[in-house]
Amino acid sequence: MASFPPLKNDLLLRAARGKATERTPVWMMRQAGRYLPEYRAVREEHDFFDVVETPELAAEVTLQPVERLPIDAAILFCDIMVVPEAMGLTVKMVSGKGPTFPQPLTTPDEMERLVSPDIDAALGHVFEALTLTRRQLNGRVPLIGFSGAPWTLMAYMVEGGGSKSYRTARQWLYRHPQASAALLQRTTDVIVDYLIAQVEAGAQMLQVFDSWAGLHDAASFRTFCLPYLREIATRVKTAHPEVPLVVFAKGAHYALDALAETDYDVISLDWTMDPEAARTTVGDRAVLQGNLDPCALYASPEALQREVQQMLTAFGAHGHIANLGHGMLPDHDPEHARLFAETVRRHSAAQPAT
Amino acid sequence: MASFPPLKNDLLLRAARGKATERTPVWMMRQAGRYLPEYRAVREEHDFFDVVETPELAAEVTLQPVERLPIDAAILFCDIMVVPEAMGLTVKMVSGKGPTFPQPLTTPDEMERLVSPDIDAALGHVFEALTLTRRQLNGRVPLIGFSGAPWTLMAYMVEGGGSKSYRTARQWLYRHPQASAALLQRTTDVIVDYLIAQVEAGAQMLQVFDSWAGLHDAASFRTFCLPYLREIATRVKTAHPEVPLVVFAKGAHYALDALAETDYDVISLDWTMDPEAARTTVGDRAVLQGNLDPCALYASPEALQREVQQMLTAFGAHGHIANLGHGMLPDHDPEHARLFAETVRRHSAAQPAT
Repeated sequence: MASFPPLKNDLLLRAARGKATERTPVWMMRQAGRYLPEYRAVREEHDFFDVVETPELAAEVTLQPVERLPIDAAILFCDIMVVPEAMGLTVKMVSGKGPTFPQPLTTPDEMERLVSPDIDAALGHVFEALTLTRRQLNGRVPLIGFSGAPWTLMAYMVEGGGSKSYRTARQWLYRHPQASAALLQRTTDVIVDYLIAQVEAGAQMLQVFDSWAGLHDAASFRTFCLPYLREIATRVKTAHPEVPLVVFAKGAHYALDALAETDYDVISLDWTMDPEAARTTVGDRAVLQGNLDPCALYASPEALQREVQQMLTAFGAHGHIANLGHGMLPDHDPEHARLFAETVRRHSAAQPAT
Repeated sequence: MASFPPLKNDLLLRAARGKATERTPVWMMRQAGRYLPEYRAVREEHDFFDVVETPELAAEVTLQPVERLPIDAAILFCDIMVVPEAMGLTVKMVSGKGPTFPQPLTTPDEMERLVSPDIDAALGHVFEALTLTRRQLNGRVPLIGFSGAPWTLMAYMVEGGGSKSYRTARQWLYRHPQASAALLQRTTDVIVDYLIAQVEAGAQMLQVFDSWAGLHDAASFRTFCLPYLREIATRVKTAHPEVPLVVFAKGAHYALDALAETDYDVISLDWTMDPEAARTTVGDRAVLQGNLDPCALYASPEALQREVQQMLTAFGAHGHIANLGHGMLPDHDPEHARLFAETVRRHSAAQPAT
């Protein structure tokens, strides 16, 4: 493993490990992105996947929110689709539609098109970007790496792109349960290697995004999401026990108890989940992350501050990493992102320890 | 009120009123629609809104699933967008996109474009369709009327059409909370008149669809959904205490206790909600409806039957109306819809009363 400058702000890592902290750490999902004019300036010159695949550009864009906002983490600018791409599928970014697979996996037979990638060869650009970013961060804040979860990646691989209902992918689960398990396991194996290699390249915390977990009912989640999420955590922890792991199973409101039984240190809540109820369910088995409604950033400064304060009160002073309940949106005002982070800092520092 | 042929199958109405029934009644959301070849045949000759607006066609399409499947209710073929249309907005059905408002309410000022409709003049075609359908049903099964809920209609009116995140509409809530309340109240008033008139035209049960309730967190649901849903039930019950009312707040997993405190007789669950947990929360305050994952209809006959039996066991023998957790999908096999309904009938008749 490369050596890096010492970390000056380790709030995030201490909080993720369940330690008491002097205030609540804060970052934002999709904090590097279109709402920042400096990001849009880069994108005027470069395609989305050019930025992802060019370490210098990915590092530049990753650092943008850290330069501008009082946040406690950087998260690598990357895309969850790099894993399906490494597995042999072609992904294109279609304007207004998002990532699209021109040839999705329409039947189980087509799994023959998948390859077992040499992670370093296929995803070397991600690891280079992490190493470069970590150096450029120079210890200011920790660097987060991430991956899509097996089910969420399968949803895209089968559906071919974004969808309201993902009914093609969900049809697969019901029609081809065995092939689904095989595809999910195969994706899991790649994700494990990918995440372990991210740590070796410089990632200091890892988040697994199961963005479409909420399409499942509880039984289906137990079959098609949970075993793979659990295995990822166990295997990555075996390789790197010191690195905190975060799971974000968006919409899986019924899954908190089961997730608390896995090796994830942190459970990230979407904005529809109640922090107090989540704490009751999870107890001290995991730190909670989240969960302001991203749309609250559209509110007036006064209303936004009130919302942030209510959120902090609901989570309590410890065992919490402040974040949004989903990603930043392209028409957010960067000044409201600043107000979000500043309010977390100020208010949580004044919050009485419980 | 017109007089209609006597009802031969009142299972649905008895179950909705909390009475014990000899078996569980069953129907399916969006049971009239594209998965039926006889529906597609009608649509080859007529546009979507032509079918909605022509009572003879709406009645024909409403009856199609009743002719074909062993179900215990008809639900009028109509669209929730007829209410925004009656309020003065133009709605177009765009192929592949769904209902679209060419001029959405981009700012509160534009609420000036809304009118307070004369319900009979604006929506007479719906009432005619209900009366005609009820006559043609000839008492075979009860006829359900419905409306979109205020928030769900507002989401479309502001957003201009379907959307993954409805962030424009949700931005309105945060930026213009007072104007949002005014718009929701105004829509509520129209919905109340609309539902009352549906009963007078022949509807025997009413369902309110809050399809986008799940975009809210619990606090936002309490502010922007619950008061209007509650008011609709109270006012419709005052006019027609004998008509069972159903509420379907899709995705609002945190709202069951609050909904159980309203005047709705039945709470419809989406497929992500656990029937046993819901029953614990709701107690005997409401009948539960739902909630098989619509994608389970893609499964093999054996697997589908197993899923239906598990659902029936989870809900128990009483206080349950069997349904899907969301609407039928265009590529469903009508024979699997039959198997769903038949399995409910057969298995619930054999289920021991608890």
